[in-house]
Amino acid sequence: MSDTKTTATLFDAYLGGQDVAACFGAVAFTAHMLAFETALAEAEAELGFVPDGAARAILAAAEVDRFDLDDLARATVAASNPAIPLVQALTAAVAADDKAAARYVHWGATSQDVVDSATMLAARTALEIIDARLARIGALLIELAAAHRATPMVARTLSQQAGPTTFGFKCAGWLDGLVGARTAIHRECLALPLQFGGATGTLAAFGERGRAVAALVAARLDLRDAAPWHTERGAVRALAAALAQVAAAAGKIADDIVRLAQSEVGEVAERAEDGRGGSSALPHKRNPVAAIAACAAARRAPGCLATVFAAFDQQHERAAGAWHAEWPALVGLFTVTGGALEQLERALDGLEIDAAAMLDNLERMQGLGMSEAVAMALAPTIGRAAAQAVVRQACLAAVDAGENLATVLGRDAQVVEILGSDGLAAALAPENHLGVAGELVDAAIARARAWHATPGATDAGADDAEGEVT
Amino acid sequence: MSDTKTTATLFDAYLGGQDVAACFGAVAFTAHMLAFETALAEAEAELGFVPDGAARAILAAAEVDRFDLDDLARATVAASNPAIPLVQALTAAVAADDKAAARYVHWGATSQDVVDSATMLAARTALEIIDARLARIGALLIELAAAHRATPMVARTLSQQAGPTTFGFKCAGWLDGLVGARTAIHRECLALPLQFGGATGTLAAFGERGRAVAALVAARLDLRDAAPWHTERGAVRALAAALAQVAAAAGKIADDIVRLAQSEVGEVAERAEDGRGGSSALPHKRNPVAAIAACAAARRAPGCLATVFAAFDQQHERAAGAWHAEWPALVGLFTVTGGALEQLERALDGLEIDAAAMLDNLERMQGLGMSEAVAMALAPTIGRAAAQAVVRQACLAAVDAGENLATVLGRDAQVVEILGSDGLAAALAPENHLGVAGELVDAAIARARAWHATPGATDAGADDAEGEVT
Amino acid sequence: MSDTKTTATLFDAYLGGQDVAACFGAVAFTAHMLAFETALAEAEAELGFVPDGAARAILAAAEVDRFDLDDLARATVAASNPAIPLVQALTAAVAADDKAAARYVHWGATSQDVVDSATMLAARTALEIIDARLARIGALLIELAAAHRATPMVARTLSQQAGPTTFGFKCAGWLDGLVGARTAIHRECLALPLQFGGATGTLAAFGERGRAVAALVAARLDLRDAAPWHTERGAVRALAAALAQVAAAAGKIADDIVRLAQSEVGEVAERAEDGRGGSSALPHKRNPVAAIAACAAARRAPGCLATVFAAFDQQHERAAGAWHAEWPALVGLFTVTGGALEQLERALDGLEIDAAAMLDNLERMQGLGMSEAVAMALAPTIGRAAAQAVVRQACLAAVDAGENLATVLGRDAQVVEILGSDGLAAALAPENHLGVAGELVDAAIARARAWHATPGATDAGADDAEGEVT
Amino acid sequence: MSDTKTTATLFDAYLGGQDVAACFGAVAFTAHMLAFETALAEAEAELGFVPDGAARAILAAAEVDRFDLDDLARATVAASNPAIPLVQALTAAVAADDKAAARYVHWGATSQDVVDSATMLAARTALEIIDARLARIGALLIELAAAHRATPMVARTLSQQAGPTTFGFKCAGWLDGLVGARTAIHRECLALPLQFGGATGTLAAFGERGRAVAALVAARLDLRDAAPWHTERGAVRALAAALAQVAAAAGKIADDIVRLAQSEVGEVAERAEDGRGGSSALPHKRNPVAAIAACAAARRAPGCLATVFAAFDQQHERAAGAWHAEWPALVGLFTVTGGALEQLERALDGLEIDAAAMLDNLERMQGLGMSEAVAMALAPTIGRAAAQAVVRQACLAAVDAGENLATVLGRDAQVVEILGSDGLAAALAPENHLGVAGELVDAAIARARAWHATPGATDAGADDAEGEVT
Repeated sequence: MSDTKTTATLFDAYLGGQDVAACFGAVAFTAHMLAFETALAEAEAELGFVPDGAARAILAAAEVDRFDLDDLARATVAASNPAIPLVQALTAAVAADDKAAARYVHWGATSQDVVDSATMLAARTALEIIDARLARIGALLIELAAAHRATPMVARTLSQQAGPTTFGFKCAGWLDGLVGARTAIHRECLALPLQFGGATGTLAAFGERGRAVAALVAARLDLRDAAPWHTERGAVRALAAALAQVAAAAGKIADDIVRLAQSEVGEVAERAEDGRGGSSALPHKRNPVAAIAACAAARRAPGCLATVFAAFDQQHERAAGAWHAEWPALVGLFTVTGGALEQLERALDGLEIDAAAMLDNLERMQGLGMSEAVAMALAPTIGRAAAQAVVRQACLAAVDAGENLATVLGRDAQVVEILGSDGLAAALAPENHLGVAGELVDAAIARARAWHATPGATDAGADDAEGEVT
Repeated sequence: MSDTKTTATLFDAYLGGQDVAACFGAVAFTAHMLAFETALAEAEAELGFVPDGAARAILAAAEVDRFDLDDLARATVAASNPAIPLVQALTAAVAADDKAAARYVHWGATSQDVVDSATMLAARTALEIIDARLARIGALLIELAAAHRATPMVARTLSQQAGPTTFGFKCAGWLDGLVGARTAIHRECLALPLQFGGATGTLAAFGERGRAVAALVAARLDLRDAAPWHTERGAVRALAAALAQVAAAAGKIADDIVRLAQSEVGEVAERAEDGRGGSSALPHKRNPVAAIAACAAARRAPGCLATVFAAFDQQHERAAGAWHAEWPALVGLFTVTGGALEQLERALDGLEIDAAAMLDNLERMQGLGMSEAVAMALAPTIGRAAAQAVVRQACLAAVDAGENLATVLGRDAQVVEILGSDGLAAALAPENHLGVAGELVDAAIARARAWHATPGATDAGADDAEGEVT
Repeated sequence: MSDTKTTATLFDAYLGGQDVAACFGAVAFTAHMLAFETALAEAEAELGFVPDGAARAILAAAEVDRFDLDDLARATVAASNPAIPLVQALTAAVAADDKAAARYVHWGATSQDVVDSATMLAARTALEIIDARLARIGALLIELAAAHRATPMVARTLSQQAGPTTFGFKCAGWLDGLVGARTAIHRECLALPLQFGGATGTLAAFGERGRAVAALVAARLDLRDAAPWHTERGAVRALAAALAQVAAAAGKIADDIVRLAQSEVGEVAERAEDGRGGSSALPHKRNPVAAIAACAAARRAPGCLATVFAAFDQQHERAAGAWHAEWPALVGLFTVTGGALEQLERALDGLEIDAAAMLDNLERMQGLGMSEAVAMALAPTIGRAAAQAVVRQACLAAVDAGENLATVLGRDAQVVEILGSDGLAAALAPENHLGVAGELVDAAIARARAWHATPGATDAGADDAEGEVT
Repeated sequence: MSDTKTTATLFDAYLGGQDVAACFGAVAFTAHMLAFETALAEAEAELGFVPDGAARAILAAAEVDRFDLDDLARATVAASNPAIPLVQALTAAVAADDKAAARYVHWGATSQDVVDSATMLAARTALEIIDARLARIGALLIELAAAHRATPMVARTLSQQAGPTTFGFKCAGWLDGLVGARTAIHRECLALPLQFGGATGTLAAFGERGRAVAALVAARLDLRDAAPWHTERGAVRALAAALAQVAAAAGKIADDIVRLAQSEVGEVAERAEDGRGGSSALPHKRNPVAAIAACAAARRAPGCLATVFAAFDQQHERAAGAWHAEWPALVGLFTVTGGALEQLERALDGLEIDAAAMLDNLERMQGLGMSEAVAMALAPTIGRAAAQAVVRQACLAAVDAGENLATVLGRDAQVVEILGSDGLAAALAPENHLGVAGELVDAAIARARAWHATPGATDAGADDAEGEVT
């Protein structure tokens, strides 16, 4: 920890999520471990396991500023976890003030109780940052979806132009992805469990009153009162899966932005800023750098997720390695998720939408993108298969001759007879072939707005959202 | 598909889950695709998009036996998905009976609607198998936990003997893992979404009535009526995460069984059967083969999970590769999860528990496993740190002299003065240092029994469970 | 194995690699296990451990057709590996002809010797298929690279058009990727090790002559004579890494093809064929289905690779789960690699190259793609930074005014003064700014042609290659 | 970078590899980027592209101390890579001394040339640290293997005691794993490629002399002169695979150590030290903390490896995300590999071997571990299958009666008739059933010693090794 420039890379900030990473950093994590020890002492005092004065002395000593975090990091190596040296240091600090009280530090707990509970406390602050960012991105997407509810563009399937859609509908799909991921985050926020089992999980130090102690500690830390889960890591895996959902939903949006920004498509561009998106060799370039960074961050999530899930073999009552491998993988997953969101917000904030380019692209394909519309118009008369055959033939003719599909179809007697020339024109108009896109946009916006009322929302997140989503 | 012995390996059955895999096999999957086409036609008839007679003709033709699945598999290669050739074959089959009706096959849908919806239908049958297996395993674990609620054994942390616990409490932890995973499975069962968006997701073929069609199709297939999710795959990822949770929970149990069965521990053994667990070279061996197979299956889940999550970059309105990579990874995840459960059930069914060996192992460490108990007994008088120092010293002396901890402590005047010799004996008795293990066992059993009433349970699963868990 | 249509999915063939998968299928794998038993008996006869007659009897009985593979698959479940039941069946088959000889079946070996060695023999045949396919794809790429050595197209960096390159140079990059991957495959072909250690790895059954037996068995099976590697799986991991390299190199090419085929780029198209690349909803579409399938196959490789590497914790002398998890992951990796190549070959064979579209795209960006060329031309006079500033300004002006860069620069007095108008035209001509692209194409083709002489090439692969690469 | 305690976790040092991570840290990486720019300028001067004076000015300015790395990290976010702001800062620094020279900074190169080449330079220093650590661990293992060449212990297969082996042979297996991994590392050391292609890979800035410039730059940086590999990442993947091999080989050893140290086995223990391996709750414990940490580090490698391989889809001429995702995954892989080695060395250094416990464990199983030996002794007379049946029967009888296998077999008339009682005793003596374990130990040591002469060894590594391995 002592020499940042040595181990921190130039890429760390670029890949984002440093505020989320800081929730698990030495300062914050030590504070969370001390919060556990304090809540424990207070609960034990309440139930008469330790004297009130001892609990007060522990509370007084448990200030993160009193501890040398470099020493703590070094001792963590020898001890194999940070709780052991912290408990020693805390015991010494309490003893300095109140020798008798020092006896009661960490009473009845084990290292894993401290580390796992501190991790859950850190997770909560990190989830709040993530949730607030999701709320802001949600607000940006609601705005885009509403503004472009009827902006026509071409849908692309399997890399090929397919037919008309709207940019608002694309934004609605992005929004749905985030709403789903945010729901998972809220569920996890509410489910964060206290870890408390003592040396072997039986809370043996408290005789028959272990569960009462646990309930009080949980209440003080505002964590879920759960059975000890030292080697049953479903809660950690669920948390990891929720984070990976967020990263994936963000990554999908960022990937689409990069594709829409590509030179040959040119339908969106990131906000132009000094020093942003330039090239060291090519003066004209304007790279969608924030979206690219978001993609890069999102690509790191699946590996972290797999590492967390692969640590299922948590041996017996405390794992020899599987537990320790989970820590950095989970912190890594938090960081890349935070990074993906940070960069996605940067990409969306001020994203330039070129509706004219969207229309150009829709028309560029000689009207081929309207082929389904014409086939659907013909089908009630001649059947779906025959209609598709007629239109496919016309498409091939249009491609061969370099003509527009409208021209080719206008020459087709059968088609004109069935649809009439007005009917053909109507069938070829993108705005007539958008189905329920608008309705689906409205529904997605409504779902996103309902975030506010979501019972699972953290207070902080809900407040943020309230301010943002209007 | 035509030559099984060529591509199926000898390991397939060993690794288990073949019944789950069969839910996605050619026969079942084709039936599910046909179910989609039928439900679509019927919904469209109800709303007047197609004639009633056409819907009846489609229903009549949509029999899986009428289709050549080898042909279908071959055509899938050229077409890039199985829906296109199936729709062609179904159209031909309908036309054979009712030429006019053939026009209405697949009306307004796209291939991905068929494939994704069929996948969800297949997932439901697979989840029912998995749920039933979870119920049976739960019943076995409830029985074990109850029977061994007070069977003392040594807890092991970081590979070292730590202190006393009970085998029932270990089973309770296993049970908690499965309950959590089963809850996730139930949640996913209820959330399986219909896919229905037409070529570009806008349901353009139905004008303004696309959502009404979708609602009816969803109702007929008993799937959730969802907005089109062609490239927003949160539902698939959530399903994958729930499966991986099951595999992980099963893998943890299997890993513990292998460790308890190891020669030097010998606390459990799989049921002896002819041809089971032998060695081609070593006649005396009795390997825990089912638990080993369950571990192997569970180890395959994280890679499949990562592949599903890595497919987040579902381009625009239909992915060119990311969608196609998801299929086999999801089926693989279902299969290994089914396999892990199948083998775990085999391991637990008839598992021999050697309570005497458990007690031997607890006592084997010269009473060192009771060190925490003695330290806790001393701590109220001399403080936690001093108590630990006294006991640590005694432990080292016991190890050096090859004596029992009780003997060494019995010679320590301070210890005897504080505790008395009866108090020392009481502190050293494992049964006095089990804390709330029994209470936690009861709570875990209660949680597991509450599975029955879980609103999320599938009917099939709940029925199964009812019969099993007693 | 008995009911293919039940478990084989419709997607299996689509995702390809079924011929590679078949190398590990029940028939082939049983034959390889029998080959091991035969080579073992013959080696032992040569050294006097078993009578010559017994070796002959074993050889005579070791015909794959004599064994019921469904029985074998079933017994594999109970036994936990296929070697145990096969050895029993082989012993019975030998005993039927020669009771005395039956004593010597599997003499001194253990199950893992049989399974691992058979896996290596299966790997060799699978690698030969992969190598032959690499040779054919290499030949297609050599042809493309040579034919389009000077076909100008735009290079795209970070999704933006950058400057001129050639399609031949792009092909040369693809080729380099395959050459590197093929080199790794050749290295692994030569390194495939015999597994032979007996029950505990010490070859104890042969007293002091164990290594002599091993050397003879290795020679007969044409495998590398290696120290027992029952739980030291570096060779398996190296094989897995080489396969994943092939899948990655193939996936990069396929991904580029999909991008070049996208509607807005339109520079390549897969060969048009009946039933290929159509859409169930959109009659005009021509999807690059083979490249899409290759991408999908390649995306599955990293998960398989991670599973193989995560199985590093091969406990003691034979792993309880980690070994068993490796089998299907390795076979899966072989299959997806084979599939990626199969589909890539299909995509490249008959790939239509649209040189006019390439030129159009290069010119489409108002000449902005030539900005570096102009900057480089100006830099010797005014410095790189100033030159870039001038050109960047001109680019922005061109974009604003919708003019071509040539027009804007032609109005810039400083530029015209420095370069002259001929010099400016020359600087703006793509063919003058291709650097050593042609030279690099030639070098890549030369490296690819040198494959023939590669000492690591398997005979089969080398022969195939000889025929193809000309 | 500015606030370490915020983002660095307490676990960072525990998980190890910080010296390896530092090779990619801001200071070192900036120095490597400057080394590239310097080598480029000098090569260009040599070939007349830039004036000699300019190259000298660039060399003079390219001191890492002259750059504000916090500024650089911040500008990296906007620019999307660190090369762009560094080139700007370097240009300014050169201009401060020599305005004319500033024109020539970064002449003809692109950002990716700088970043990729700097990564390869950083990789080299990191590989040297890893190689030196491999050499020291190799020396420790050679010593252990030689010292315990004949120390009997029980082999364990599928978690069960199997038969006799030696601790030396186990060490030889560990050594073989490291030798294989080290060979891969050496191969990669020699293969580290220069990245140099300019904006689009064609080296267009140098006309027809691009390859000459590249050759000179490569020579100056002592990197391999390779064709541009901007989006052909086989070299990065090969490097990643070699690192993952090292992590896996280290992880296997660490996993075995944890298993040998478990309370019920007790055959090895990590060196006792103050503050090492204690428990916050259990005073008697001595956890194998270094081996546990090595396992944890090794478990992180497969996820990083998968992320690197999953980045195969490097679009066109520069990837929009896949390239950026590779950086942290590769650095992560280097770090965990370094960490696994650091902790493994700590575990092995002073590892206490308890040969008496090994013998106890071998004898503990009532002689059942010698069953294969007896079966092999009987087999020549009555056949392998019959011999196994006889011995299996005796084993079951021994287990039932709680007797030693020797006692049971001594009562079996057939066995005594065939072997004689001396023959039976000899068959039951572990030291008579060790096969070629000793020979295989010698061979493994010889292979490890041959590391010195390995042509692929880096100079630094070879020197280190020379001093260590004796």
